[in-house]
Amino acid sequence: MTRTDHAPEAAPAALPTPELWPLLSSERGPDLTIFRARYDMLTNPRTGEELRRTVLETPDWCNVVAFTPERRLVIVRQFRFGPACITTEIPGGVIDAGEASEDAARRELLEETGYTAPRWRSLGCVEPNSAFHDNLCFHWLAEDAEPTGDTCQDPGEDIAIATLDADEVRAEVASGRMRHSLVISALCRVMDLWE
Amino acid sequence: MTRTDHAPEAAPAALPTPELWPLLSSERGPDLTIFRARYDMLTNPRTGEELRRTVLETPDWCNVVAFTPERRLVIVRQFRFGPACITTEIPGGVIDAGEASEDAARRELLEETGYTAPRWRSLGCVEPNSAFHDNLCFHWLAEDAEPTGDTCQDPGEDIAIATLDADEVRAEVASGRMRHSLVISALCRVMDLWE
Repeated sequence: MTRTDHAPEAAPAALPTPELWPLLSSERGPDLTIFRARYDMLTNPRTGEELRRTVLETPDWCNVVAFTPERRLVIVRQFRFGPACITTEIPGGVIDAGEASEDAARRELLEETGYTAPRWRSLGCVEPNSAFHDNLCFHWLAEDAEPTGDTCQDPGEDIAIATLDADEVRAEVASGRMRHSLVISALCRVMDLWE
Repeated sequence: MTRTDHAPEAAPAALPTPELWPLLSSERGPDLTIFRARYDMLTNPRTGEELRRTVLETPDWCNVVAFTPERRLVIVRQFRFGPACITTEIPGGVIDAGEASEDAARRELLEETGYTAPRWRSLGCVEPNSAFHDNLCFHWLAEDAEPTGDTCQDPGEDIAIATLDADEVRAEVASGRMRHSLVISALCRVMDLWE
């Protein structure tokens, strides 16, 4: 479990800010392999009522917008266990304990696609879902990526690789084959996805 | 649990497509209040190996990009249980069983903010996380929204409301206070968030 310190900036005084919720107690929930459930007892400052809320303790994630020298996007196609269908996404995965997000991004790009890249730039990060995840997903841009290495797929992966030009990326988005929120969040920083 | 039929379009022949994973069995996991865990036993077609994967059965969600007649964005500020801090987001929530996503969007906007709007348009949908969620999040645009109704907050909510102009929205994103992936996914369809 690796999570960097990632408190957002304090809000300016002009912005209405509700109270923080006092934490009364915290209880272990089931281990779900990719995250661990925790139950927090909190007080709602608006009502004074005590509430039990589920938090999924989740390591940070990363994903990579990788362009070839011809400005084609490196994509992965794989069976996804949530919708039980094949999706089109960009490479990404879990940041290991103690690993920097850029190192994880380089590793995931290589392991999933065999591509490496000389130029890397941070595209920022998002909360995958602040309602119950406590992690961040870091977006990285890799430029001039080329297939120089060997893929190394996890036992839980069966990945097909392709590169797409901008119109083909937009076709994947329009078709519903590429609509993972974290993929959209990364890509929309560098491409117009709905031209 | 409401999930609409939402199969993406079949891929064109030119796109490399791995095999679907045969489902061997499926087993109930713990009820986590906001979703229900399920364990699927699947065969990885690449290796022939059997694997157990966690799926969180989750109802569909919606969120709303609501603009006032002055083109100010209606935002909600609330304590979020994942990062345990106050975030800036757009209104949204769970689509009830049998409820259309537009009706849910209208209801969530009213309940969380007291705003109603005469003009509504779909902004598409995303998979919140295809790795383990089986649901979609539907994005809606509401225009000429005005504070005409009464808010009706859930026991689990303590929401402060504000409206922001485009520069103020970008400041919220840049500060890290507004970085929920589903909020970014909705907003980037109608605004330049990183000008």
